Amino acid sequence: MERKIKIVVIGAGAAGIGFAKALQQYGEQDYLVIEQDAIGSSFARWHTHTHFISPSFTSNQLEMIDLNAVSPDSSPATCTHCEHPHGYDYCQYLQTLAHDAQLKIQEHTTVVDITKLSDDWYHVQLSTGETVITKYVIFALGDFYHPTTGNIKGNEHGIHYRDFDMMQPHMEAEQVIIGGNEAAFDTAIQLAQRGIKTTIYATQNNFNLTESDPSKRLSTYTYERFMQYEALITIKTGYWLTEIQTSSGEYTLHFKNGLTHLITHCPILATGFNINHNPLVQQWFASTEQNVVLDENDGSTLAPNMFMIGPAVHFQDTILCFIYKFRQRFAPIIELIFKREGQVVPPAAHDLYLRNKMFLQV
Amino acid sequence: MERKIKIVVIGAGAAGIGFAKALQQYGEQDYLVIEQDAIGSSFARWHTHTHFISPSFTSNQLEMIDLNAVSPDSSPATCTHCEHPHGYDYCQYLQTLAHDAQLKIQEHTTVVDITKLSDDWYHVQLSTGETVITKYVIFALGDFYHPTTGNIKGNEHGIHYRDFDMMQPHMEAEQVIIGGNEAAFDTAIQLAQRGIKTTIYATQNNFNLTESDPSKRLSTYTYERFMQYEALITIKTGYWLTEIQTSSGEYTLHFKNGLTHLITHCPILATGFNINHNPLVQQWFASTEQNVVLDENDGSTLAPNMFMIGPAVHFQDTILCFIYKFRQRFAPIIELIFKREGQVVPPAAHDLYLRNKMFLQV
Repeated sequence: MERKIKIVVIGAGAAGIGFAKALQQYGEQDYLVIEQDAIGSSFARWHTHTHFISPSFTSNQLEMIDLNAVSPDSSPATCTHCEHPHGYDYCQYLQTLAHDAQLKIQEHTTVVDITKLSDDWYHVQLSTGETVITKYVIFALGDFYHPTTGNIKGNEHGIHYRDFDMMQPHMEAEQVIIGGNEAAFDTAIQLAQRGIKTTIYATQNNFNLTESDPSKRLSTYTYERFMQYEALITIKTGYWLTEIQTSSGEYTLHFKNGLTHLITHCPILATGFNINHNPLVQQWFASTEQNVVLDENDGSTLAPNMFMIGPAVHFQDTILCFIYKFRQRFAPIIELIFKREGQVVPPAAHDLYLRNKMFLQV
Repeated sequence: MERKIKIVVIGAGAAGIGFAKALQQYGEQDYLVIEQDAIGSSFARWHTHTHFISPSFTSNQLEMIDLNAVSPDSSPATCTHCEHPHGYDYCQYLQTLAHDAQLKIQEHTTVVDITKLSDDWYHVQLSTGETVITKYVIFALGDFYHPTTGNIKGNEHGIHYRDFDMMQPHMEAEQVIIGGNEAAFDTAIQLAQRGIKTTIYATQNNFNLTESDPSKRLSTYTYERFMQYEALITIKTGYWLTEIQTSSGEYTLHFKNGLTHLITHCPILATGFNINHNPLVQQWFASTEQNVVLDENDGSTLAPNMFMIGPAVHFQDTILCFIYKFRQRFAPIIELIFKREGQVVPPAAHDLYLRNKMFLQV
């Protein structure tokens, strides 16, 4: 079976669902979202006590929409009754939104391969054996599936934040966490809530930044939780981990500053995620060590009509890794596609996204 | 001493400070803010454990500004490190903002009287004995000084939420609260935190509203706190208090539905505030029982060049009683004044307020 579909969206997370909803609001019905697991499933896999650091607020009044909403007419706060939704709550929000809007989504289906046909169409091979011929491919991939431990020698002796079981019984008295961002502090706070001491080794203390950008500075939500447990959390700044050595069940951490730390259990690496590890991204996008390289329309620089949306997108110098940031780049891409297709942009949809500050353009 | 000042702003709370800052950003220096107490002092008088129900978030990036900011370039989250600032924190934020911007504010000065001069100027009499001749009067009054207990017969036997000392020792085991809005639930939650049971009598349970407007529906922040203590809080809906009778130290509450409740201590009246009780407002603005009557520019319908800003303002059918709502009406009034004065609106200032969704116009 071979279907012809104008727009294929890969991934039904926050970006994919928001983009599909926007397509629908622009009156575009010729699309399909392909999701390897279930709608919002990455969120459902978050640690049990990990919550959104950006607050959801009940109102979508007067176009001041919920920071965590992916569409102008929905609100996680209203849907979940949580100001800081847990990943599982957020998954419910995305599923409710997709269901209510009857978005076109094919779950439990992996995109196995994409090849370019001669006439500006792409051939998308699915794990179900189906193939789709499409003109536009939207990569709406989260990076949850691609944890990174950077250039640390012996990084296989550490355990990544994502895979560390915070609820495991009989935890050692003290844990060591590498990293200075939200995940490092979230881990330390969750362990502290169980009375477990931690030491955080970080290059800098992001609480002290004068930046107001929460992609860099730690959030107020984290700061306030941290302050409750600061007696249990030691922060050592100026430490850049270069190597983990292990011998007889002990681990030696080597830092760039020449110092070492010997511990009896493996360090927790809160060292982030990297979308560049995704094979489809590697195939269709150029990249630097950390970032996907995109043109000014968030398009691939290697192939036409392929776009990246979601947390991997940058806008000028700004990291768009929060929902309230990256949701602003759905509508401009849709309008670009309309332009390329010679379709008329519906003024009401344009106005809806513009008014709601979901239309960020150069 | 008689000064001639183009614009007089009465009140240095959230609205007055935000308006003065906007005037400065529009390049208008011929203004003075008159404050009867100190900058933000009403906020400092909030109950010790009462917090903003709208969350402050660290970022003012990409024009997604802090919901509780009064100007595009400031953030209570950054300033106070609180996601839900306490009134005292918020007062600090306003004072810091006013100080850093060197806004023109005269504290500890009451406007005693305003009279109209023949030539479109107003004569403003101050408690210091000074007089100011001004062309525009901006009422930036909060309603904290004007608690209301509505049309309840015997309302003098109740105590208003604002004046109830929640921290008093030896509190009776159970308290009765009248009202179904944020203040009622805030009181119940604060008492529950001390183990004190309460019964809330309300006309309706605002948790159940399908409205997304937080001016009507109770906030997620309140909902979450309530859920922690629901065992201690009884909500009785369908109760409209008409009379409080007292005899031999006992209080009988009479409700419209014919039911009564006998208690041994006075009820707490979380029945709101009403700006119409302010004598200057009474003098210069028409009013309905609950609201000030304004023209489409938030101007007085009784006198030219007098404007109302802040939580008392409505926009069409929307109540602007949150900071993120009413801050949108500063710049349009300033531009109207510029137009009336034949002054050129600086494009950069207009753009700043427009981009930041601080420019709500018909």
